[in-house]
Amino acid sequence: VVQGAFATLPEEPPIPEDNAMTPEKVELGKMLYFDPRLSSSGVISCHTCHNLSLGGTDRLPSSLGHEFLTGGRNAPTVLNAAFFNLQFWDGRATGLEEQAQGPIQAGVEMAMPADMAVNRIASIEGYLPYFEAAFPDEETPITFENIAKAIATFERTLITPNDALDRYLRGDEEALSDDAKRGMEIVVQVGCIACHNGPMLSTGTLMPFRHGEDLGLATVTGEESDEFMFRVATWRNVSLTAPYFHDGSAETLEDAIRIMGSVQLNRDLTEDEVYYIVAFLESLEGEVPEITIPDLPAD
Amino acid sequence: VVQGAFATLPEEPPIPEDNAMTPEKVELGKMLYFDPRLSSSGVISCHTCHNLSLGGTDRLPSSLGHEFLTGGRNAPTVLNAAFFNLQFWDGRATGLEEQAQGPIQAGVEMAMPADMAVNRIASIEGYLPYFEAAFPDEETPITFENIAKAIATFERTLITPNDALDRYLRGDEEALSDDAKRGMEIVVQVGCIACHNGPMLSTGTLMPFRHGEDLGLATVTGEESDEFMFRVATWRNVSLTAPYFHDGSAETLEDAIRIMGSVQLNRDLTEDEVYYIVAFLESLEGEVPEITIPDLPAD
Ligand code: HEC
Ligand code: HEC
Ligand code: HEC
Ligand code: HEC
Ligand SMILES: [Ca+2]
Ligand SMILES: [Ca+2]
Ligand SMILES: [Ca+2]
Ligand SMILES: [Mg+2]
Repeated sequence: VVQGAFATLPEEPPIPEDNAMTPEKVELGKMLYFDPRLSSSGVISCHTCHNLSLGGTDRLPSSLGHEFLTGGRNAPTVLNAAFFNLQFWDGRATGLEEQAQGPIQAGVEMAMPADMAVNRIASIEGYLPYFEAAFPDEETPITFENIAKAIATFERTLITPNDALDRYLRGDEEALSDDAKRGMEIVVQVGCIACHNGPMLSTGTLMPFRHGEDLGLATVTGEESDEFMFRVATWRNVSLTAPYFHDGSAETLEDAIRIMGSVQLNRDLTEDEVYYIVAFLESLEGEVPEITIPDLPAD
Repeated sequence: VVQGAFATLPEEPPIPEDNAMTPEKVELGKMLYFDPRLSSSGVISCHTCHNLSLGGTDRLPSSLGHEFLTGGRNAPTVLNAAFFNLQFWDGRATGLEEQAQGPIQAGVEMAMPADMAVNRIASIEGYLPYFEAAFPDEETPITFENIAKAIATFERTLITPNDALDRYLRGDEEALSDDAKRGMEIVVQVGCIACHNGPMLSTGTLMPFRHGEDLGLATVTGEESDEFMFRVATWRNVSLTAPYFHDGSAETLEDAIRIMGSVQLNRDLTEDEVYYIVAFLESLEGEVPEITIPDLPAD
């Protein structure tokens, strides 16, 4: 079986120099990730749309946020998102710190302006000691930037190692079923791995995907050259994150694979090919870290 | 210090004969409690409004449910709710099994008709083994009744023993601060314990409370004698569950205590009395069980 394009997921994601990983920051970030008081309504947290019981997604075609509004995009998983440099379906943000500031403020997500978010969190007295512990050298540790830094740090713990592919790549020949091994060969032969390769089974870069009306990165930049540019999606845990594509338009993995074959490779995959590719993609469910519910300060 | 009216919280709540407690049922119930797919939108779970990071409530004056609609009532905590026979602010349901069927179907909460809830859960194939394990002798274990039974069983694990009062009652004289002990005397002297007594610091029965426009049990029965009848609220963990009263109209514990003194006892409590009662009520935060996030079946 071919292996060249494949690589195991590292146990730790890259960590930016200006946001060192500490247990205190992870703890605070987890609290904020689960705290609905970061939204203007008080009921929506990161966990609402990136539910860690549901593969880090909401399993809806497109997310329902503040007042049940939708931005029209599907919620990608936060699992392993730390391995991506470009964030969002269209890669419009860089790094988790920048990314986390988006949904808090977005009108269709948490609808909470930055200064209101800071005021709300600062008004919950019980948070102060946690910010002081996470950002020990700072005089005013409760800032919007630090909220984002802490959440990003927690997200860097959401790594799912040891899926069947990785165990196979480390030498356990039995880890992958025969069907999955066949699927692995097919994705090489038909060319999926041009885009889906490496530890994330994604180059992490933008590629054209003409499907539906969403213009991808051009929605933000207005540049013609950015039209329909989307970041290659990861295959890690992909069987947990239906429905598929930036607009949630493919209900099943079978549908998504068929569409990829036809749109990206101009190739009608056979039923058999689709079957084996599914078997391979299903072998990419890693070990999701066990998470205890944080105890949030009452006020 | 007086003790007569007070009693420790038992470690286990009463368990109905037709819904025995098993680890399998607890596990299934926890999954359902956290599963937003029990709501018609797919984003609201029991945990949304009874957030176990927030004392089993949403900390809103009145809950936001389906499409951000509200039923106008405050979400009571699920912590120790298993010790109440009468459920809801107005006591209109009996037992947690009957109770759990309400919010799933309520248009302003999860908006999911019973048969749709059953179909949705049955369509998630991964649930079947859990229902089979929880209800081993039944041919069709996925029923609306069993969904409610499992959730009720999980709720019976949400008990918070060993708060400062209980440790004090068991002989640890130091468990309560002097301020709390003074508060304990005051609630006896002024008469709060006529209604707030026993293990739950509540008789668990309905009493008149004329405050605001909500007619209490009469909203359901239409009977004049049920007007303004509300169940005596528990004091256990009450410092975690602001805002207060069935309509969330009292923002702080101080406000709630003052209003209780004036409306229920026709007495203007002094600032000092309020201060000491707060100290006593704050000593009623028990040990909330540690909960790991369930891994929900993808489909
Ligand atoms: C109302 C739903 C909703 C909420 C709340 C929400 N997100 Fe998202 N999230 C989304 C959607 C939808 C996208 C994709 C948006 C896009 O690509 O344009 C996204 C994208 C992301 C990504 C990018 C992942 C990737 O692979 O590029 C990360 C990381 C993320 N969210 C984390 C968070 C954090 C942290 C919070 C809380 C501070 C949060 N989200 C709150 C719906 C939500
Ligand atoms: C030219 C690049 C390219 C090729 C070749 C390619 N893909 Fe993709 N793939 C993408 C991009 C870009 C996305 C993200 C699409 C979006 O934003 O909706 C994606 C998304 C997917 C998804 C959906 C993931 C999700 O979470 O929604 C699956 C499944 C997938 N690809 C499988 C395949 C398979 C199987 C093949 C080969 C038959 C293939 N891809 C070939 C670029 C490619
Ligand atoms: C949209 C918010 C919302 C959702 C979702 C919700 N609840 Fe509630 N819950 C409430 C409110 C509000 C009340 C009080 C209603 C009343 O008294 O009229 C309540 C009452 C209760 C009570 C009564 C507690 C007591 O002390 O009497 C229990 C138990 C309970 N809910 C459990 C659940 C369970 C189990 C689920 C999921 C199946 C659920 N709730 C879903 C808001 C919600
Ligand atoms: C005659 C019965 C009665 C007496 C006496 C009484 N209460 Fe209450 N108490 C109630 C009832 C009934 C409720 C529920 C009110 C509602 O439904 O909004 C309640 C609610 C409360 C609450 C709010 C709990 C919550 O979770 O919202 C507090 C705090 C409280 N009482 C404290 C006191 C104090 C302190 C006293 C004495 C000064 C007192 N009560 C006297 C019946 C009584
Ligand atoms: Ca998806
Ligand atoms: Ca309350
Ligand atoms: Ca299925
Ligand atoms: Mg305070």
